[in-house]
Amino acid sequence: MKLTKEQLKEIKDQQSHQNSTKRVTAPELEKILYEAMPALDHGFVRVIDYMGDDTSIVQSARVSYGKGTKKVSTDSGLIKYLMRHWHSTPFEMCEIKYHVKLPIFIARQWIRHRTANVNEYSARYSILDKEFYLPTAENLAAQSLNNRQGRGDVIEGDQAKQVLELLKNDAERTYDNYEIMLNERFDGSIINENKKGLARELARMNLTLNTYTQWYWKTDLLNLMNFLRLRADSHAQYEIRVYADIMLDTLKRWVPITYEAFLDYRVAGTEVSAKGKIVLQKFINNENISMEDSGLSKREWNELMDAFNLKDKIIK
Amino acid sequence: MKLTKEQLKEIKDQQSHQNSTKRVTAPELEKILYEAMPALDHGFVRVIDYMGDDTSIVQSARVSYGKGTKKVSTDSGLIKYLMRHWHSTPFEMCEIKYHVKLPIFIARQWIRHRTANVNEYSARYSILDKEFYLPTAENLAAQSLNNRQGRGDVIEGDQAKQVLELLKNDAERTYDNYEIMLNERFDGSIINENKKGLARELARMNLTLNTYTQWYWKTDLLNLMNFLRLRADSHAQYEIRVYADIMLDTLKRWVPITYEAFLDYRVAGTEVSAKGKIVLQKFINNENISMEDSGLSKREWNELMDAFNLKDKIIK
Amino acid sequence: MKLTKEQLKEIKDQQSHQNSTKRVTAPELEKILYEAMPALDHGFVRVIDYMGDDTSIVQSARVSYGKGTKKVSTDSGLIKYLMRHWHSTPFEMCEIKYHVKLPIFIARQWIRHRTANVNEYSARYSILDKEFYLPTAENLAAQSLNNRQGRGDVIEGDQAKQVLELLKNDAERTYDNYEIMLNERFDGSIINENKKGLARELARMNLTLNTYTQWYWKTDLLNLMNFLRLRADSHAQYEIRVYADIMLDTLKRWVPITYEAFLDYRVAGTEVSAKGKIVLQKFINNENISMEDSGLSKREWNELMDAFNLKDKIIK
Amino acid sequence: MKLTKEQLKEIKDQQSHQNSTKRVTAPELEKILYEAMPALDHGFVRVIDYMGDDTSIVQSARVSYGKGTKKVSTDSGLIKYLMRHWHSTPFEMCEIKYHVKLPIFIARQWIRHRTANVNEYSARYSILDKEFYLPTAENLAAQSLNNRQGRGDVIEGDQAKQVLELLKNDAERTYDNYEIMLNERFDGSIINENKKGLARELARMNLTLNTYTQWYWKTDLLNLMNFLRLRADSHAQYEIRVYADIMLDTLKRWVPITYEAFLDYRVAGTEVSAKGKIVLQKFINNENISMEDSGLSKREWNELMDAFNLKDKIIK
Repeated sequence: MKLTKEQLKEIKDQQSHQNSTKRVTAPELEKILYEAMPALDHGFVRVIDYMGDDTSIVQSARVSYGKGTKKVSTDSGLIKYLMRHWHSTPFEMCEIKYHVKLPIFIARQWIRHRTANVNEYSARYSILDKEFYLPTAENLAAQSLNNRQGRGDVIEGDQAKQVLELLKNDAERTYDNYEIMLNERFDGSIINENKKGLARELARMNLTLNTYTQWYWKTDLLNLMNFLRLRADSHAQYEIRVYADIMLDTLKRWVPITYEAFLDYRVAGTEVSAKGKIVLQKFINNENISMEDSGLSKREWNELMDAFNLKDKIIK
Repeated sequence: MKLTKEQLKEIKDQQSHQNSTKRVTAPELEKILYEAMPALDHGFVRVIDYMGDDTSIVQSARVSYGKGTKKVSTDSGLIKYLMRHWHSTPFEMCEIKYHVKLPIFIARQWIRHRTANVNEYSARYSILDKEFYLPTAENLAAQSLNNRQGRGDVIEGDQAKQVLELLKNDAERTYDNYEIMLNERFDGSIINENKKGLARELARMNLTLNTYTQWYWKTDLLNLMNFLRLRADSHAQYEIRVYADIMLDTLKRWVPITYEAFLDYRVAGTEVSAKGKIVLQKFINNENISMEDSGLSKREWNELMDAFNLKDKIIK
Repeated sequence: MKLTKEQLKEIKDQQSHQNSTKRVTAPELEKILYEAMPALDHGFVRVIDYMGDDTSIVQSARVSYGKGTKKVSTDSGLIKYLMRHWHSTPFEMCEIKYHVKLPIFIARQWIRHRTANVNEYSARYSILDKEFYLPTAENLAAQSLNNRQGRGDVIEGDQAKQVLELLKNDAERTYDNYEIMLNERFDGSIINENKKGLARELARMNLTLNTYTQWYWKTDLLNLMNFLRLRADSHAQYEIRVYADIMLDTLKRWVPITYEAFLDYRVAGTEVSAKGKIVLQKFINNENISMEDSGLSKREWNELMDAFNLKDKIIK
Repeated sequence: MKLTKEQLKEIKDQQSHQNSTKRVTAPELEKILYEAMPALDHGFVRVIDYMGDDTSIVQSARVSYGKGTKKVSTDSGLIKYLMRHWHSTPFEMCEIKYHVKLPIFIARQWIRHRTANVNEYSARYSILDKEFYLPTAENLAAQSLNNRQGRGDVIEGDQAKQVLELLKNDAERTYDNYEIMLNERFDGSIINENKKGLARELARMNLTLNTYTQWYWKTDLLNLMNFLRLRADSHAQYEIRVYADIMLDTLKRWVPITYEAFLDYRVAGTEVSAKGKIVLQKFINNENISMEDSGLSKREWNELMDAFNLKDKIIK
């Protein structure tokens, strides 16, 4: 990730502010406010603003006049209770805003989380930066053979080299041609004074999906957790997980009590179906039950065994 | 509006905080933060938290690294442009949270604005305060004769007295019986030690719709303006307008540039239909056009004349 | 529940229609379309319209040109997979619309499900029906002693009689006074020709929360299941559960495959936290673990034991 | 637009269905149900399902037991009233579902309308079709000189030829390399049996933004009109307007009364700010007012004159 001098200066300027406020603050989050935390080869995540902290959840759950309770233990118990019983509205009372730079094909996954506010850099209006995502060697994965939307082994050797070259060359050439069609370079210089440029809203169609875009993205704490639950999960595409992991760290700095409950109940927790419950009960009571008798499909059976770390019960 | 000593102390405590933050602040809004601004006879509006200011709108509209521009004039021009052309997403980048005490029948109107986050005081869980809304004499309006959901003249004399007495007596009696059914007074004292109380979730059904409830209500700036546009309008029910007017003042303190544009384009602006445009064009060109030829209904014609203050053209 | 002759005729009229359509239909749901299914003492649930069926979920999950597959087994497997892995968007592709009559205090719970479309009968505009909810003897529950928002034993004898009388008398008297203030009876007759009536938007505040209202309520299948999961649950208030149970039956008629998966994974399934998983693993491996060592609170421990029907491990 | 034989057969199959239903139907919309209406060079719009018609709006606005009124005139008056006064909820009571094939850069604009349900063809899971959008000669517009997000004159001659060639070649080459990286052709044939293919979720990043994707898109009538108001507008990008225009026609077939009101009040109507109202009033009263005195910016002044077709008052 490389920012221009001007951008770095703007960030420094914001970070140098020390405003006085009666609002609650999250000191650990303040420390990294506005910072551009690198993601992938040219992307970043910046926390731009936030509202509320752990006490805000307690305060609104109780519809209290003051600031929830004084005792951390009581607040923590309530937050855990709310998380366990899927009480959603108190977690909506905190809000956070990010500035994110990310490849377009990842932006297209991300935007499917609808309960968020977004302003994206407009390629109808401006010229996109000349930056493309190129995977590192260890992330150049083959198509998974048993999961149609997953990754298998890493591709190596000559094939890896070829893939990276294709990606690089295609991105660069399509970008160069984008400039030629625009009759303008990304630095604003005109290519041929005697020509008109193609409309920006048209020229952009020549860019590849690994071109970087950027946006402001704002959401409440509940929907942030919904996002992280799906996107920081091991089944999520690696490239979006990189962003989710950075955001998980901002969650910890912002609302540490909620973060702990989120890890316990959502991230590392699991769901068990009615049929799955009977299987586990039988196991606990030392009774036998086979996959066939359980009513579970092989896939479902194995997912259950995997969730409870019962490796020897997995059926190949 | 009367708060308990404890509540007043909690509010004072919050107001005494002076935290340091790198976030943008709205100094005029800070001045009234947490304050309980009276509404109707027992209600209030309190601003609890906020995120962003006018510059945040500019910043995200431009997807900029820094804080929008330095010049107020440029920011103002952009905000007016965004408002005029119904650009919605930049206004979603600011957020505000209120604590409101209000009669249940008003809460039922208010909640229809769905794009907001709400935590209401739970009468399944707690006993509601013994407070009911009773209109003042000048707000005791008769049913309008020509608008099925509007108000006509004020009711006066003996009938006014009778109405107020009925409202007062019914609210008090149903509340007293609510306590009897609960076997518990609102101050927590038990009425009859030998009896069980009816479940709170049931007993509450005996309360009248003018009983006060309270909630935390959080929304973004765009949806706040949608709310205010409808609820601060002269066609809105008086009782909700009282709240909307207080909130309009908080809007002015929070985002003064947006507030001005909102007044100009939304509140005091008007819409003209395709047919209405032709009527106005004819007027401007000193051509004649009658209601019959315009294709407008009488009602629609009069709404148009009224909007443009053309009193002599209104058809009785 | 009593409908007027006119209302019954309108329903019969609608039911007699036999339109031809190329859209998919749900034959079992068609059988009860428009029918007023009784709920509580004066309420009902009517299915007014719907869009899609089980095959629509499959069709959109596959973004196919035709109607999903022909084989029920394949469709069923996919729907179960989608449910298990919390894929949400395909379930949003079906839509249903209800007409519901319900007490106001239940409407206030219901409306908190925001992702739905609602048109409620307007008491600003019209006079509400003279109908109030009065619990039957067996639903007159005392406040629970250990759950602040739950019910305990049934109240009996004289106290029960007293409660019912208070509820009935207060509802009737406040309604009578509502009519007096309106200067109009619910059948439209004027009480005193020489008087003006109080505005409807004001008079309604005198009604008690068990007065019936009605609305059209439309939602997609995903959000219907979210609603039913919470409101058909044993922890939901009895009065809303009555409605949810009727709607569960309409779900079965509409999308039978989805209904089965919903029961298995959502209704009768359970969630296990990271700490809870370790407890169950120890049990399965015949290792000891105490509540103290588990990191679970007593309440949480008991919830887990209860979910897996391990009665002897519950700690009093 | 070219569909495979199999796809055409699936569509024919669906169209041959004649199911019986008690639901309301929209006969004109039924006539084109499932039909693939061509859009741009390879795209299409198909109406897959719908719920409700004009009478459904009336029915829910009145919360009636039957089917609104019998008289079209009364229904029409109410629908116009609702549209004029921005009553939104009754229009949410109708729902429609489309299957759309469209270039990715248009999909990215479209998806910003959040209040809709979407299932998009997954390029993590499947290989995208080998189809790219290439503008026709008359749509090859230059960048506008006075509107940073608009189009100016058409580009012609050699430059036009060059642009089209660049677009075509880049799309084809990046697609060929996509296949090489996947080690699989779009028809499913393997390129080199001894190689693994790159994961689909990675390979897709090499595609250009004019590649076609497809989705199921479902929304309610209110949000469809919000979409059409913006996207069928002359300021919208041509390529999305093509889709919006086709959908406008489906609106007309579906809810003809609402369609008329929509054209009159939304599409061909205009908004006038508080300051703009004063200008028009002065004109009507034959008083003078200059742009300077009006408080309007030049741009705003001209927008107003343009809206009311007052060409001679436009300031160059």
